[in-house]
Amino acid sequence: MAEVQELRYEGKAKRVYATADPGVFEVEYKDDATAFNGQKRGHIAGKGVVNNRMSNRLFRLLEQHGVPTHFIEELSERRTRVRALTMLPVEIVVRNRIAGSLASRLGLPEGTPLAQPLVEWYYKNDALGDPLVSRAHAEVLGWVSPQEAAEVERLALAVNHVLREFLAQQGVELVDFKLEFGRDSAGRLYVADEISPDTCRFWDVATGEKLDKDRFRRDLGGVEEAYAEIWKRVERGLAP
Amino acid sequence: MAEVQELRYEGKAKRVYATADPGVFEVEYKDDATAFNGQKRGHIAGKGVVNNRMSNRLFRLLEQHGVPTHFIEELSERRTRVRALTMLPVEIVVRNRIAGSLASRLGLPEGTPLAQPLVEWYYKNDALGDPLVSRAHAEVLGWVSPQEAAEVERLALAVNHVLREFLAQQGVELVDFKLEFGRDSAGRLYVADEISPDTCRFWDVATGEKLDKDRFRRDLGGVEEAYAEIWKRVERGLAP
Repeated sequence: MAEVQELRYEGKAKRVYATADPGVFEVEYKDDATAFNGQKRGHIAGKGVVNNRMSNRLFRLLEQHGVPTHFIEELSERRTRVRALTMLPVEIVVRNRIAGSLASRLGLPEGTPLAQPLVEWYYKNDALGDPLVSRAHAEVLGWVSPQEAAEVERLALAVNHVLREFLAQQGVELVDFKLEFGRDSAGRLYVADEISPDTCRFWDVATGEKLDKDRFRRDLGGVEEAYAEIWKRVERGLAP
Repeated sequence: MAEVQELRYEGKAKRVYATADPGVFEVEYKDDATAFNGQKRGHIAGKGVVNNRMSNRLFRLLEQHGVPTHFIEELSERRTRVRALTMLPVEIVVRNRIAGSLASRLGLPEGTPLAQPLVEWYYKNDALGDPLVSRAHAEVLGWVSPQEAAEVERLALAVNHVLREFLAQQGVELVDFKLEFGRDSAGRLYVADEISPDTCRFWDVATGEKLDKDRFRRDLGGVEEAYAEIWKRVERGLAP
């Protein structure tokens, strides 16, 4: 890059830069990893490359299925142009099986299949530990309009449907994942942030092996190998 | 009582006994008080009498407005006959202003009015600390059918409407309250448990003074006096 870019936001795993076009941001993916709301910190070599490339491939797949995403153009192995959006202050989690925080919160065995996908709303606030809320909280507190809330859930379930089917063809079960949404100046909603082993649980269908950040969270070893493996499967399944 | 009754359940504030009629339980209200999921324990003299009488009066008021409740007949100042129900494993909280756990959970100032009543779902499980969930969790995990979930929310909002209006006439603002629901053998839903200063936040409209268990939780003093005062207002407003 010749020009000096203004850093708009630096998160745990990404930096976001402004560009000359006010409608466009550039995202840069880092190898830094955190877990448990920043209590655990580490580094996963090559993670930024996997997460950038995988997110972009999956965003394109979603666009092909009618789901609007913030993806514009991949610039390099770690850099991508995306729509500049006003982010909703929520994280949406879609679950197909009980795992992670839902298992501990409700005292239910990890791996229990759900009769239908479960959509969860979290308040995006690091200082408060991103607490679970509900669609009703988001509406009553004015974070989203009722129309936006319905659209968020519709899009989240559509993403689940598309990704679950695609990943099953690659021998991977989509256990759960987190989405973030933003709105453009016209009020249209887009899936934003990333879709990667940092934000999804991927279980190998044949072996049950975890191919995601739980290997880092739970000190299971083979972290880099898992990221490489899931990227290999996604890349194989989606022509560039 | 001449007969020896089978104790079916003993909670923090009540005992529930089986009776000769399988469709009827007897509830006995105690003066024991706990807060913060049992971490704080104490005794509020006369609380059981206030909670029994107030719950019964308010249940009758709700019945007059078409809300089914478990109330059958007051037997004494601490004892009441109620329908024997299968309880739903949830606690429903309706909020008109931000207070208590919602304030701390979301980092919002206590007392902030809500644009519309907020219905919250909690998983009733002492060992897990009665965690917040959502209507979606209750449906997907099979605790309630989608029809029951809708009916629970409809009844909770109806209770809020009736109680809020009645209490306003007594100079009391209904800030929030907890409900529990049970179903009979035909699947009909009823408001159960109690409606009392243990389960509601009552604020004096003129002074803002708390007339509820927050005086115990927060060591504000005047606990017994507050229970007596709110009971006086409810009794005055509702002919026996």
